[in-house]
Amino acid sequence: MSAPDATSPAPTRIAQVMDQVRTRIAARQLTPGEKLPSIRAQAATLGLSTSTVVEAYERLAAEGLIRSRPGSGWTVAAPLAPLALAHIGPRRERAVDPLWVSRQSLEADDARWRPGCGWLPPDWLPQAALRRALRGLGRAEDRALTDYGPPQGLPALRQWLARRLAEQGVTASPQQILLTGSGTQAIDLVCRFLLQPGDAVLVDDPCYFNFLAVLRAHRVQVIGVPWTTDGPDLAGFEAAVAAHRPRLYLTNAGLHNPTGARLAAPTAHRVLRLAEAAGMTVVEDEVFADFETHPAPRYAALDGLQRVVQVGSFSKVMSAAVRSGHIAARTDWIEGLTDLRLATTFGGDALGAALVLAVLQDGQWRRHLDTLRLRLARARHTVAARLQAIGITPWVQPQGGLFLWGRLPAGVDASALSRAALMHGIVLAPGNVFSAGQTADGFMRFNVAQMDGPEPPATTADGLWPTLQTLLRTPDVRGPAPSPHDRPSP
Amino acid sequence: MSAPDATSPAPTRIAQVMDQVRTRIAARQLTPGEKLPSIRAQAATLGLSTSTVVEAYERLAAEGLIRSRPGSGWTVAAPLAPLALAHIGPRRERAVDPLWVSRQSLEADDARWRPGCGWLPPDWLPQAALRRALRGLGRAEDRALTDYGPPQGLPALRQWLARRLAEQGVTASPQQILLTGSGTQAIDLVCRFLLQPGDAVLVDDPCYFNFLAVLRAHRVQVIGVPWTTDGPDLAGFEAAVAAHRPRLYLTNAGLHNPTGARLAAPTAHRVLRLAEAAGMTVVEDEVFADFETHPAPRYAALDGLQRVVQVGSFSKVMSAAVRSGHIAARTDWIEGLTDLRLATTFGGDALGAALVLAVLQDGQWRRHLDTLRLRLARARHTVAARLQAIGITPWVQPQGGLFLWGRLPAGVDASALSRAALMHGIVLAPGNVFSAGQTADGFMRFNVAQMDGPEPPATTADGLWPTLQTLLRTPDVRGPAPSPHDRPSP
Repeated sequence: MSAPDATSPAPTRIAQVMDQVRTRIAARQLTPGEKLPSIRAQAATLGLSTSTVVEAYERLAAEGLIRSRPGSGWTVAAPLAPLALAHIGPRRERAVDPLWVSRQSLEADDARWRPGCGWLPPDWLPQAALRRALRGLGRAEDRALTDYGPPQGLPALRQWLARRLAEQGVTASPQQILLTGSGTQAIDLVCRFLLQPGDAVLVDDPCYFNFLAVLRAHRVQVIGVPWTTDGPDLAGFEAAVAAHRPRLYLTNAGLHNPTGARLAAPTAHRVLRLAEAAGMTVVEDEVFADFETHPAPRYAALDGLQRVVQVGSFSKVMSAAVRSGHIAARTDWIEGLTDLRLATTFGGDALGAALVLAVLQDGQWRRHLDTLRLRLARARHTVAARLQAIGITPWVQPQGGLFLWGRLPAGVDASALSRAALMHGIVLAPGNVFSAGQTADGFMRFNVAQMDGPEPPATTADGLWPTLQTLLRTPDVRGPAPSPHDRPSP
Repeated sequence: MSAPDATSPAPTRIAQVMDQVRTRIAARQLTPGEKLPSIRAQAATLGLSTSTVVEAYERLAAEGLIRSRPGSGWTVAAPLAPLALAHIGPRRERAVDPLWVSRQSLEADDARWRPGCGWLPPDWLPQAALRRALRGLGRAEDRALTDYGPPQGLPALRQWLARRLAEQGVTASPQQILLTGSGTQAIDLVCRFLLQPGDAVLVDDPCYFNFLAVLRAHRVQVIGVPWTTDGPDLAGFEAAVAAHRPRLYLTNAGLHNPTGARLAAPTAHRVLRLAEAAGMTVVEDEVFADFETHPAPRYAALDGLQRVVQVGSFSKVMSAAVRSGHIAARTDWIEGLTDLRLATTFGGDALGAALVLAVLQDGQWRRHLDTLRLRLARARHTVAARLQAIGITPWVQPQGGLFLWGRLPAGVDASALSRAALMHGIVLAPGNVFSAGQTADGFMRFNVAQMDGPEPPATTADGLWPTLQTLLRTPDVRGPAPSPHDRPSP
């Protein structure tokens, strides 16, 4: 242990400032959005040097408790502060913040490219069936247009979902299904039902970035388990269970986001046994189920919905404008979850559920799914080749879905590349937004459907691919030296 | 202080059992839905009498931590347990549980009467405009049918809401408005953003029962302030602020639910001054705004959205099947709330928002509101007279809206009457589901729109009114002797 640098502030004094701010926030003397005392004022009050206060504020910011914004100084962060990042800083640094990527993708207009977004372009989705369904709803009976509908949601849609579960080998009655406003809301409800602040939760590293955001909103401890081409790394999983006694494991069923890899049956079996031994719940999100040609094993099927909760939605495969998600779980949990949903959103989206059901029962639905899977297979092939031509290598060749997890050329920093690309109207999804351990700065998730086919109207002279190629050669996108944590390729 | 009855279990031993169960739940050794050791087993393990364990379990149930169900023994309650009630017991006792009333109302089919529910029958709502809007959406551009839409929600609907706020004297830009999935979801998001478990929150007593349910989900301390015909009782409000240092006050703007009374301007001014002095936030829910003929004062207008947050929805006045709510607040709070909404539900209901906007812009919307207000005024008059004829007196004659807050004949217990009525297919809303202090067992909320006009197909021989009259004469509905807490009539 070396003595602190003579010019560094003393650790105990930094801790003193941090404690004082933490106490005031805990006592609600400082509330979200409120300004903290300036560095100078705080230093004067406590009789400390400004460098001590600066260091304390920086560390509190790294914990997500406070944040700094250009022009408004230091403020108290909301409960959902940006994820604590290695190098949090001014606003443009949010390029590695999951919520920033969501907002950029959602706000991007037609003139931008969105290889980083998580959904399909409009012309890939069943427009005609949606229009037919809307016209059909215009002729529905009065009550369907105005009533809340039953607490668990439209019975006919729950029956449809129960039948689909049966096809996967999961025996569940419609009473074991609760409809929600979205797949994310389904996960959020399950977390509210099962978690306490401070609980430990396992996720894959990398995982869907919004898992990190929703877990942060629950103030739980997020533990990343390295992800392999067969599912979670079993040794890592076992070690994390032993070390943290996690309450649940949140993962994708079937196709994994962001890598596109799929769970192998032996891994699934072993994970379930570990979960059983530890009294853990497994939550599997099968939002990409309809993209699979050969369905991967389901935890729910192996376990029979005892300690597994399955959630899903149709936002990826049908429409993101119609909000509909669902939870399948033990009957007694569904009862509690229904109460919780009533308390926190009251009625369900009865009209949205009716619309989803009408599209599912439309004669063209099966054909839509077949076409979609074929078109995605072709796009994965084309985009993988174009990525390789500019030096980006897919980590695995996925058997389905819309994502490629690309390894960047040596030395390229995904966050730096994302920031540079944004200046050219390109929204990318840098690896670390998916990584609880911040170990994926050499990776990037690419949405093949957004990168295939004719390019949208150009805002740069060169279009998407030439711009990416040029950017990759820019010195700005070179990051720090490769980290020893970079996972070896499978 | 008297010594405990010789046959009563010793208080310290009861506390010992309670602590042991609490510790196991806190350590997650017992999780929601899980069975507790049986009374007998627990008594044997701890070397105590079964009566000690029974008393401990009953007290834990009164706190909402565990619950008993016929046939399945004692189980751990979910975070959202039924509200701790004076006489919690077997399942039928949920007649005084807010969630039970919601579920009964939502599950009730055509053959039942629902004087206790909180919404209008289908033929009171703008069916033709909704059908036109659905057909119109069937012709919308592709992107509107399938995309998530911007993070804060449809800009045109936010502009419409900003204009309506301006008409109320509230200056707010569309950037200060966030669309949500429902009015309840709006309140839930604000609570998640501003509250910590254990914070104190003021509500009116009585208040909208789902306020109690949503606050319970946040594990905060709920403090009821007596409600008068002019708004909250100012002395009570001031005392509650001083005693509990509450973080926020959650109330209805305009027409109050359940009483139909409206806030007086001097009261509004005084409440805001108290809130300012205490650093409290006021959340006003104006879900009944469109039912007002002469708008009551708004906290948001007096305060300019500094420490006031306004929430609302169109579920009462347009359709409950289309989910749409909104929040108007300070810009920096809206930014944090938008992040929180992204994390917990991801996209908004873009199609639902487009549908709401289309109905608002339909040529018939103003006429619908005018007709609705007239029809409600007539129904309030008719139903008040019929209630008085059977001995139920409205506490106040509301100037708008769908509710009458009726004082039952002396000695009638609202919970007992509700349970008896349910056997006859009538869902009532007994006073105590609205009362944080459980002081309204002599009151009942009546929905005039559900009680006016021709009766639905009878499941009893006599119809709604004769059944109510008969039940009021039954000895079963007589409660305990009148409580000294019964509020005097204004």
